Amino acid sequence: MNEQDISRLVESVMGSISSASDCNAEKHHKCTCLRDISLDMAKKLALKIEAKAKEIGVNAVVAISNTGARPVLVECMDDSYIASYDVALNKAYTVVSLKMTTSQLKELSQPGGPLYGIQFTNNGQIVIFGGGEPLKYNGRIIGGLGVSGGSEEQDTFLASYGASVLAEVIKEFK
Amino acid sequence: MNEQDISRLVESVMGSISSASDCNAEKHHKCTCLRDISLDMAKKLALKIEAKAKEIGVNAVVAISNTGARPVLVECMDDSYIASYDVALNKAYTVVSLKMTTSQLKELSQPGGPLYGIQFTNNGQIVIFGGGEPLKYNGRIIGGLGVSGGSEEQDTFLASYGASVLAEVIKEFK
Amino acid sequence: MNEQDISRLVESVMGSISSASDCNAEKHHKCTCLRDISLDMAKKLALKIEAKAKEIGVNAVVAISNTGARPVLVECMDDSYIASYDVALNKAYTVVSLKMTTSQLKELSQPGGPLYGIQFTNNGQIVIFGGGEPLKYNGRIIGGLGVSGGSEEQDTFLASYGASVLAEVIKEFK
Amino acid sequence: MNEQDISRLVESVMGSISSASDCNAEKHHKCTCLRDISLDMAKKLALKIEAKAKEIGVNAVVAISNTGARPVLVECMDDSYIASYDVALNKAYTVVSLKMTTSQLKELSQPGGPLYGIQFTNNGQIVIFGGGEPLKYNGRIIGGLGVSGGSEEQDTFLASYGASVLAEVIKEFK
Repeated sequence: MNEQDISRLVESVMGSISSASDCNAEKHHKCTCLRDISLDMAKKLALKIEAKAKEIGVNAVVAISNTGARPVLVECMDDSYIASYDVALNKAYTVVSLKMTTSQLKELSQPGGPLYGIQFTNNGQIVIFGGGEPLKYNGRIIGGLGVSGGSEEQDTFLASYGASVLAEVIKEFK
Repeated sequence: MNEQDISRLVESVMGSISSASDCNAEKHHKCTCLRDISLDMAKKLALKIEAKAKEIGVNAVVAISNTGARPVLVECMDDSYIASYDVALNKAYTVVSLKMTTSQLKELSQPGGPLYGIQFTNNGQIVIFGGGEPLKYNGRIIGGLGVSGGSEEQDTFLASYGASVLAEVIKEFK
Repeated sequence: MNEQDISRLVESVMGSISSASDCNAEKHHKCTCLRDISLDMAKKLALKIEAKAKEIGVNAVVAISNTGARPVLVECMDDSYIASYDVALNKAYTVVSLKMTTSQLKELSQPGGPLYGIQFTNNGQIVIFGGGEPLKYNGRIIGGLGVSGGSEEQDTFLASYGASVLAEVIKEFK
Repeated sequence: MNEQDISRLVESVMGSISSASDCNAEKHHKCTCLRDISLDMAKKLALKIEAKAKEIGVNAVVAISNTGARPVLVECMDDSYIASYDVALNKAYTVVSLKMTTSQLKELSQPGGPLYGIQFTNNGQIVIFGGGEPLKYNGRIIGGLGVSGGSEEQDTFLASYGASVLAEVIKEFK
C-alpha cells in the first residue's frame, strides 16, 4: 500500500463519514439539517397561501406547526371565520400528530372505519375533514399546515397548494 | 354673492365633503356605523322572541352575541331547561363564528358531509342543530342569535322569527 | 353662474354633506372606520417587535388580537418556549378583555388587591404579569398585543415597544 | 259534641291545614311562594342596576342566577369588558353557592384565611372580590346577583344597590 493508496483510502473513508452523517455539521454538534420549518419560512408560505386564497375569494386562517405539533404561526385573514382559528390550528396539529392529511384521516375516521373515534381523543384537537397537510421536505415531515375558511374543497385545495410550494419557499432561504 | 364668495363657499363645502366621506364620525373619534347589535336592541329583540315562544308554549333561552361572537345578552325564560343556557349561548357563538344558520351547518356536518367533525372543534362551542341565526342588517352580520328550549323545529322557528324582526327592532332606535 | 345655479350647487352639495355625515360609507354597506387591526398591519407590527426581540436576544412569541379579543396573528420565533404560545395569546386576550396592560392588571390582582382572583376567571385566559398592551389608535382600542418569551421585564419592554410603533405602522397603510 | 262544636273543630282543623301548608296554593299542587327570581323580575332589576351604572359612568355586565345557581339573565352593557361576562356570571354563581357576598368571601379566602383555596374549586366559578350579592326576599335567598365592569368598589356598590332595590322590584309584580 503506497502513499497514493493510503491517500485514496483516507479520502474515500472521509467521504463515507461525511455522507454517512448525512449532515457534516452534526459532527460538530450543530445540526444544519432542516428539521423544523422556521418562522420566516412559515411566513413566506402563509403569504403565498393567502394570496391564492384571495384569488379564489376565500378569507382563510392559515396555521403552521412544527414537528412537535406546536404552532409556529397562525394568521387570520381579515373577515375570516372566528371558528376557523381553532380549526386551522388543529388541522396543523392533526397532520403532524398522525402523519397524514386530514383528507386521508377523514376516510379512516368515518363510522365503521379503522380510526372511527379518533376525533374524540387528543382533547378535541383532531380534525377529520380536508384542509390539513403535512409539510414534507426531502421526504421528511418538517411541520404541519392547516387551512380553514372556505368550503372543504377550497381548504383542501389551499392546503395542498401550500404543501406543493414548500420546496420553492425553502429554496429562497438557501 | 360674487365669484369670490362662491369660490369660498364651494371650497369650504368641498372640504366638508372630503372629510365627511372619510367618515366624518371617525374624525371625532366616534364611529357611528352600526357594526354590533347594542344591548338595548338585543333586549327588544329577545322580548319579541320570548313573546312568540310563550305563544307556542315554549320556555326558551335566548342568547344574543356581537360580531366578536361574545355574548351581549342571555335570558332564560322561567322553567326553561338548565341545559338550554349552554346550547343557546353556543348557537349564538356558532352562527357568528361560521356565518351561517345552525340549520345550514347541520347539513354540512353530517357524517360524510364536508364539515363533519366541526362539532368537535372550538372547545365544544359549535352547535349543529337548528335554532341559531346570524343577525344581519344592511347585508352585514351585526350579531348572532341562539334559541333553545323547544323542539328543534320550534327553536328553528323562533330563531328565524327573531332574525326576521331585527330590522323592525332597529328602526325603533333611529 | 346665476342664483339658480348657486342654489342648485348648494343644494346638491348640502345633500352630499348630509348623507356623508351619516357616515357615507355605511350607505354603501361598507364601513371604513378603522375598528380592528388588519392582518397586514398585524404582520408589520409583529415584524418590528421580532426585530427588536432579536436585538435584545429574546425568542419571542407575538400574538395580536382584534377588538373581539379573537386572535388575528400568532408568530413563534424559532426556538421560543412552547409555553409562550399560550401566554402570548392570552395576554392578547386579557388586554382587550380588560382594557388595560397586563402590568396594570398585575398590580390590581395581587393578594389584597381589588382584582385578586381575576386570574381564576375566564377559563384561565387572564394573564397577570407584564407583556400585554392594548393597541390604541386615535384613542380607541383596535386590538391587543401579547408578547412572551423573555423575562417579564423584556416582554413588557417589547409589548410596550409594539404599542408605541403602532401609529407608524398604520400610517404605511394610508 | 254538638253541631257548634263540630263546626268549631272543623274550622280550627281547616285553619291548621291552611297555616301548616303555609302556602295554601301548594295544596293545589301549585306553589305561589316566590322561591326563584323570575326572568321578568330579573330584567327589571338589571334595568335599574344598568341605569345606576350609567349614572356613575360604568359599562357593567349584570348577571342574575336562580337558587340553583343557574343563570336567569346576563346583560352586557355596550362597550363593557369582554372579561366581565365570565366574572359577573360567576359572581352570581358564587353568592348562591356559598350564601354570602363575594366581599365577605374575599376576606375568608385570603392567604391564611379559613377558605383560602376555595377559589381553585368549582371549576373556576368562584369569584373572591366584590360585586356579588345574594338576592334575598323575606329572609330567603331567591337568586344571586353579579356585577362586573367598574372598579371593585363600583361593582360592589352596584351589586349592593341591586340587592337593596329587589323588594321594590318584586312589589311591582304583585
